[in-house]
Amino acid sequence: MATVHEVARIAGVSAATVSRFLNGTAKVSIEKRQAIESVIERLNYKPNVLARNLKTGSSRTIGVLTQSLVSGYFADAMAGIDDALQGSGYAPLIVSGHWHADEEAERIELLIARRVDGLVILSGKLKDAQILKLSQRVPIVAFGRTLDGPQAYGFSLDNYRGACEAVEYLIGQGHRQIAFIAGPADHLDAQARLAGYRDTLRKHKIKASAQLIVEGDFSESGGLQAVERLLASGQRFSAIFAANDLTAYGARLALYRRGVKVPEEISVIGFDDLHSSMYTTPPLTTVRQPLFDVGRCLGQAIVRMIGQEPLALDLPQLSLVVRESVQRVA
Amino acid sequence: MATVHEVARIAGVSAATVSRFLNGTAKVSIEKRQAIESVIERLNYKPNVLARNLKTGSSRTIGVLTQSLVSGYFADAMAGIDDALQGSGYAPLIVSGHWHADEEAERIELLIARRVDGLVILSGKLKDAQILKLSQRVPIVAFGRTLDGPQAYGFSLDNYRGACEAVEYLIGQGHRQIAFIAGPADHLDAQARLAGYRDTLRKHKIKASAQLIVEGDFSESGGLQAVERLLASGQRFSAIFAANDLTAYGARLALYRRGVKVPEEISVIGFDDLHSSMYTTPPLTTVRQPLFDVGRCLGQAIVRMIGQEPLALDLPQLSLVVRESVQRVA
Repeated sequence: MATVHEVARIAGVSAATVSRFLNGTAKVSIEKRQAIESVIERLNYKPNVLARNLKTGSSRTIGVLTQSLVSGYFADAMAGIDDALQGSGYAPLIVSGHWHADEEAERIELLIARRVDGLVILSGKLKDAQILKLSQRVPIVAFGRTLDGPQAYGFSLDNYRGACEAVEYLIGQGHRQIAFIAGPADHLDAQARLAGYRDTLRKHKIKASAQLIVEGDFSESGGLQAVERLLASGQRFSAIFAANDLTAYGARLALYRRGVKVPEEISVIGFDDLHSSMYTTPPLTTVRQPLFDVGRCLGQAIVRMIGQEPLALDLPQLSLVVRESVQRVA
Repeated sequence: MATVHEVARIAGVSAATVSRFLNGTAKVSIEKRQAIESVIERLNYKPNVLARNLKTGSSRTIGVLTQSLVSGYFADAMAGIDDALQGSGYAPLIVSGHWHADEEAERIELLIARRVDGLVILSGKLKDAQILKLSQRVPIVAFGRTLDGPQAYGFSLDNYRGACEAVEYLIGQGHRQIAFIAGPADHLDAQARLAGYRDTLRKHKIKASAQLIVEGDFSESGGLQAVERLLASGQRFSAIFAANDLTAYGARLALYRRGVKVPEEISVIGFDDLHSSMYTTPPLTTVRQPLFDVGRCLGQAIVRMIGQEPLALDLPQLSLVVRESVQRVA
């Protein structure tokens, strides 16, 4: 079977260039690339990164544990990770834990067995202690929790502050009766957003009526049902703060079905700023989670941690994005 | 260093069970799983699937080449692939080609170098001949093109028929002046949808005015700009057929900005049936691409091809989903 050196000789490039091409560790000029490709094809060369990596103990892959392959939320973060890994020589190996601690643990074992050089964990239900233990076996960077260990680092965005900002904005626009559609009760971000809502109302001496807080589940259908319950309850409110954008989409549709105008009759504010929130009618005012930037940060962090470099991260921040779904009331 | 046999002995299970656990090839009971996990942790055992796989020549991974990590379109297909691979013992290794033939070729080399057992290619710009050549090195299943080779199989959905169905529906609802927002001219699906639009109008002896066909790019902003151009042109039309749902979202927002009511004044129909199309206001009538099912089919096909079993696929079909964005005109 052909070797790297044979491929290099026939293609008229150095063996190091062939390696760079195969590992994707650096850009190779288009001429060299084409020469290498044509030789690889001619010789039917099968590069064996696994065999080479076995010696170095590295697979040049980063395991990424996401919770959903269909959510725009995780997709944006994954795109950021992908972007940060481009040209780093590491390819992402993506698996989904589907928000089940058992499944997450199983998938992580799969990744470790495939000798990933590092792990990125997006949210999920594993306990911090479990992740710290796993980090004895492989470097781990996590999003959605604060972690600090010799081979572990985790950060969250300040969901509490983001929620405070959303409610401050609604109050600033004259709203006093503000309904809140909560996320899943066991979800950390959801808890922080609810606390921000409650504390901001309290700060402004607005009574947070228990009936104005309805349960959702971070999905469109949860938002839709929540608004139906709110409207059926006969409670008065001029604004809805939805715990995430998907919830806001469902809430919006429920109002549309009842012929309630947004924002003329009811204002709606979301949380996340998914890509599609720019194109809802009306475009959604929401708290922006810079998830692509979060992903970039995670990708940089894991590569630096593997390389035993200082992480030196510039953590992204939440910010309010004012569009057209909130109207001032008298 | 600990071995599989040692882990098995201490955990009180068979070595085969430990292997099944590590490879994820079959369900392991929760008691056995916990016993194995605790021994792995105690011994700080690092399973080496790579070393084992080197002997068998298999990495137990399927490379998946997608074109976008953020598009709901590809996300649904990936979720279907993920679903089909669960329990198969193969984990998906996902990379993105970003619709650039060069990048796609580079990413595929990365995957082959990591010894994937098979490849799934979602759309993209590679030529069929390139894919057939690559399939001499690794089994390939592709979506968005028709392929047939000893180690290659590809299928498309019938985009032409889907477009015909959408236009037939609009005509059945009394529409005669139907604008079309096209997709990228070099995109096969976009070409098929345009042809379906043209041919169906012709079949009904409706003149397809060139001015009613405007260019889009399969994105929301493309749809928004297209409708602005249509409205500025002064052309009359009662319905818009958008070449995909994202385009329809942008079109919808452009109409909203001009105060044009959907569907009372203008009907809108899309193509794809992205998850969010159920929650637009009004919910979007569209041609459904069953992308999750497509993904499942691709996952099954690649596993069967690797196992040298007959593919025996039940290919999913396009279908019209009638919601609320189209209204009958007199």
